Amino acid sequence: MSPQLEDLFSFLRFASVSTDSRHSGDVRACAEWLRGKLSGMGLIATLHETPGHPVVLAKNAHLEGRRTVLIYGHYDVQPVDPLELWTTQPFEPVLRDGKILARGATDNKGQMMAHVLGVEQTLREEGDLPVNLIFLFEGEEEIGSPNLAEFLRQHREELRCDVIAISDTGMVAPGVPTLGYGLRGIVCCEVVLRGPKGDLHSGIFGGAVSNPATAIARLVASLHDDHGRVAVEGFYDAVKPLEGWEREMWASVPGVSDADFLDVTGAPALFGEEAYSSAERVWARPTAEVNGIGGGYQGEGSKTVLPAEAFVKLSFRLVPDQDPADIMRKVTDHLERHCPPGVQIEVKPGHDGKPYLVDPHSKFANAAQDALRASFGAEPVLIREGGSIPIVQTFRDILGVDTLLLGLALADAQVHAPNENFPVANFEAGIRMNRALLVELAKC
Amino acid sequence: MSPQLEDLFSFLRFASVSTDSRHSGDVRACAEWLRGKLSGMGLIATLHETPGHPVVLAKNAHLEGRRTVLIYGHYDVQPVDPLELWTTQPFEPVLRDGKILARGATDNKGQMMAHVLGVEQTLREEGDLPVNLIFLFEGEEEIGSPNLAEFLRQHREELRCDVIAISDTGMVAPGVPTLGYGLRGIVCCEVVLRGPKGDLHSGIFGGAVSNPATAIARLVASLHDDHGRVAVEGFYDAVKPLEGWEREMWASVPGVSDADFLDVTGAPALFGEEAYSSAERVWARPTAEVNGIGGGYQGEGSKTVLPAEAFVKLSFRLVPDQDPADIMRKVTDHLERHCPPGVQIEVKPGHDGKPYLVDPHSKFANAAQDALRASFGAEPVLIREGGSIPIVQTFRDILGVDTLLLGLALADAQVHAPNENFPVANFEAGIRMNRALLVELAKC
Repeated sequence: MSPQLEDLFSFLRFASVSTDSRHSGDVRACAEWLRGKLSGMGLIATLHETPGHPVVLAKNAHLEGRRTVLIYGHYDVQPVDPLELWTTQPFEPVLRDGKILARGATDNKGQMMAHVLGVEQTLREEGDLPVNLIFLFEGEEEIGSPNLAEFLRQHREELRCDVIAISDTGMVAPGVPTLGYGLRGIVCCEVVLRGPKGDLHSGIFGGAVSNPATAIARLVASLHDDHGRVAVEGFYDAVKPLEGWEREMWASVPGVSDADFLDVTGAPALFGEEAYSSAERVWARPTAEVNGIGGGYQGEGSKTVLPAEAFVKLSFRLVPDQDPADIMRKVTDHLERHCPPGVQIEVKPGHDGKPYLVDPHSKFANAAQDALRASFGAEPVLIREGGSIPIVQTFRDILGVDTLLLGLALADAQVHAPNENFPVANFEAGIRMNRALLVELAKC
Repeated sequence: MSPQLEDLFSFLRFASVSTDSRHSGDVRACAEWLRGKLSGMGLIATLHETPGHPVVLAKNAHLEGRRTVLIYGHYDVQPVDPLELWTTQPFEPVLRDGKILARGATDNKGQMMAHVLGVEQTLREEGDLPVNLIFLFEGEEEIGSPNLAEFLRQHREELRCDVIAISDTGMVAPGVPTLGYGLRGIVCCEVVLRGPKGDLHSGIFGGAVSNPATAIARLVASLHDDHGRVAVEGFYDAVKPLEGWEREMWASVPGVSDADFLDVTGAPALFGEEAYSSAERVWARPTAEVNGIGGGYQGEGSKTVLPAEAFVKLSFRLVPDQDPADIMRKVTDHLERHCPPGVQIEVKPGHDGKPYLVDPHSKFANAAQDALRASFGAEPVLIREGGSIPIVQTFRDILGVDTLLLGLALADAQVHAPNENFPVANFEAGIRMNRALLVELAKC
């Protein structure tokens, strides 16, 4: 095994599950190992306490007049449940059929370590990097980065940079280098409808009072028209239309055809907003989704109960230039106006994040494309992501800098799921990509 | 304590929970105690095995030319969970503020024992009963009487009778004797909608595939119009309109005004089919109710999942002359026709029971009213019940005999719930009512 794979395996052996307090020792040990690794490479590496898990920072000696590049990653991982579905031990990485199997292999230790080891190689071979580098690695990404914004504010000067690079997103297909230039935003809420003071017998009372489970269904049904379009008034007001070149490029991006979507989701048919392709629907159109709905009897068989309450958990994916606060106001108005009679409504706002869009033809983005082209030996595609990475917007808000999304994750990487994996080929391409990226960013 | 209350307390001490196999010894012991009690009174009492819990039969010596009356009851009870909400031990009956507190106090041991002890009193004082009597007591009512129909078929000759009486329904208010002459029927089903092969990330895939939780909501919403009327085509075709005298009587029945419904349900407002009172809505109008709905994330906070499937458990309360099989066909057609695109639908039929209606002015019903009037010292009201007692229809189908519903249960009896109770006054009135009933039925 190469020393680089050995380094990654050592990193993967830490059970750095940030959400589980039983693992807080593992999270810290992982951060300390990482600081040691970075320091051993010749960087100035420091561990910073936060109210939660520590942040690890590392820099080379910064020189006046050189471009400054910040590379972000996270060393914490998702929980491993359900453990019984793993074919290997999640924290004992193994190599199988050219893939590294372990929790965090793709998300995010594998991708982040490619950057670390690219820098190590450059330092060893060249003695210095072509840029002023800042590595910023946090241990709380999987729990929503609760302390990162404050850390950025406190270290704004130290973190001043020209551009940020993150490898924590997807590649559309194996061997197809992918630059992300947009993310959907999000705004969540939970709606509770309350009717009778307790569950009622549906025979004795059914027909005389509103059924909160029926009412929540009617309320949810009011969110869309019959054609899959969100029916909240003003919902699309701020949506930027797709540009011609986007539709053209996306039509030929591998891995995201309607057939691919059918295959990967296993849905009996696709369904979405009319006149848009699947890729356009997830990358550039907003949605209203039910993440959870519940009320009444949940067990086997039947129980003739008229439930006292019912809930729905909603999330809205947003695209430029929708604003989460504006959408939440419109959604709340809609829900209150469409609430069926005989129940009381409570709308509890949840977390949100703005949508993100950068110019994929800026000098930095062009440099990133050059680096991707060189390291993968193929023409990069330009995509947006359907998901949300709120930290990208936080970087823009606090540091005033845009982010390049150089994803190395494949669709079948089993991120957040059992049997997470990362191809060795992506790991090695990631190391090459880091080296090329710093060169290209230095000269662009 | 009176010997009659002592008998009831002995009966209540058996934990005859029919649904719980850990209690099957208690159920049998209860049946044997009951057989012994009936036998000690001078009746010919027998215990009959079934594939489940035993049936207890008892008769006096039948005489040619006398009317034959069958009195049905059940000696099994509901489970007691949640035990921590009881203020007493459910199987250690106590007397408090004129009420008997115990599981089964109202449903059905208290009501049924009133009949037993009425018969005992008559036998002791008169030497014989004015009618040929059959007591039929089962131990499986709370689990849907799975073996009773077969028992009725096998013992059809032995159970031949002119009329059946049951005290297992409600009184509209304390001191207001109540004769039930109708029951709603029921038909249940569970609907499952399946979309993607597994739960999806709502960011990565949201917008491109149908969300089964959204789809189930839209499907449920299709079941009613905006005014609370069921929107299934042909649903109301066979519904018998209310008669003038029913609407008139029910308007003055105590305990079932709109204010009473608001008070007892605690709903923020009443809601139901336009142009009907609450009593009319639950006693004489059919419904479509959601008993349970579920799909996606059910825990605290949010999880941005697009669920693979969602379900709804539906029940339809039916009124004369709706037929459960016909309604199930219409409902299935409706569900399949209104199923949103992009998901697969499965409709699983559940249990059903026909609605029930008898002439409340037949000679037997008039005799029952006379008995109620005499034993309570008040004018009886004639009502229907919103619930379903499938066994009543089974009696009609197999024995060809109608049933009188002489309910003694109050609205606050906590039937099926913690702190079940039965007023001593109702118990004593029930004993008097049994005696008067047999006299009136003998001479009508």
